[in-house]
Amino acid sequence: MSQQPTFKQLEKAQQGDSFDWEAVKKQVKYDDKGLIPAIAQQFDTKEVLMMAWMNELSLQETLQTGRVCYWSRSRQSYWRKGEESGQIQLLKDLRFDCDGDAILLLVDQTGPACHTGRKSCFYTAIHNNQAEILTNPIITPEELYKK
Amino acid sequence: MSQQPTFKQLEKAQQGDSFDWEAVKKQVKYDDKGLIPAIAQQFDTKEVLMMAWMNELSLQETLQTGRVCYWSRSRQSYWRKGEESGQIQLLKDLRFDCDGDAILLLVDQTGPACHTGRKSCFYTAIHNNQAEILTNPIITPEELYKK
Repeated sequence: MSQQPTFKQLEKAQQGDSFDWEAVKKQVKYDDKGLIPAIAQQFDTKEVLMMAWMNELSLQETLQTGRVCYWSRSRQSYWRKGEESGQIQLLKDLRFDCDGDAILLLVDQTGPACHTGRKSCFYTAIHNNQAEILTNPIITPEELYKK
Repeated sequence: MSQQPTFKQLEKAQQGDSFDWEAVKKQVKYDDKGLIPAIAQQFDTKEVLMMAWMNELSLQETLQTGRVCYWSRSRQSYWRKGEESGQIQLLKDLRFDCDGDAILLLVDQTGPACHTGRKSCFYTAIHNNQAEILTNPIITPEELYKK
């Protein structure tokens, strides 16, 4: 195998094949702002919790520490999930999609992932031309950010 | 309630509350290219299948037809999932996240979601500094695109 496998080359690989991450990571596709979308899914219940963004260094930190670190576009800074709310995301597995431009994070989320205090950010469903609220907060936002 | 509720206002709503989608949809946040990321999750197994992009019209078409339509950034055209491969995505539910800038699609995926013939696009995991292939194709790409 090539020392610098592209994601295109990984397509042909078989279950159990493995490649040097130091080589593969040079092929990860960041957008024109240097960011890649990352989906967080609760590892055991499989609930999709949130979607946020990573840059090269937040990805590296996440893999090194085992705690999820995003890049906050609104604050333009690293966002170590839970550093304000205490609701951290422990990394259970990190996966790339077939063309290396999206990440799936399997995590163990302490408490709610959403800043509203809901477990998941995806609580608004479109049903019969109505936007319907699916869940209530499990903690109030006031409780969440009081620390 | 306001006739044009913002996603910020929806945060305060309770489970079961509903709002006019025609009003809410004006608040959906597209990026500077007019796109919003959409995560597809198999509705029953909860496997995350893929992430792609929608624009305003592909979102509208998806809600109207119940078949998922993305916007292909590489082809710069509408991408009705399965129109080449036959592997369609029937929409079971469509959800927005708390700030209205990401979509979660609960779908029933016929066959593989991935163009490699694998069920999910997220088949490359990073373990112990290695990129490891998790799954094999369930159909060969040649079989998938022969029609």
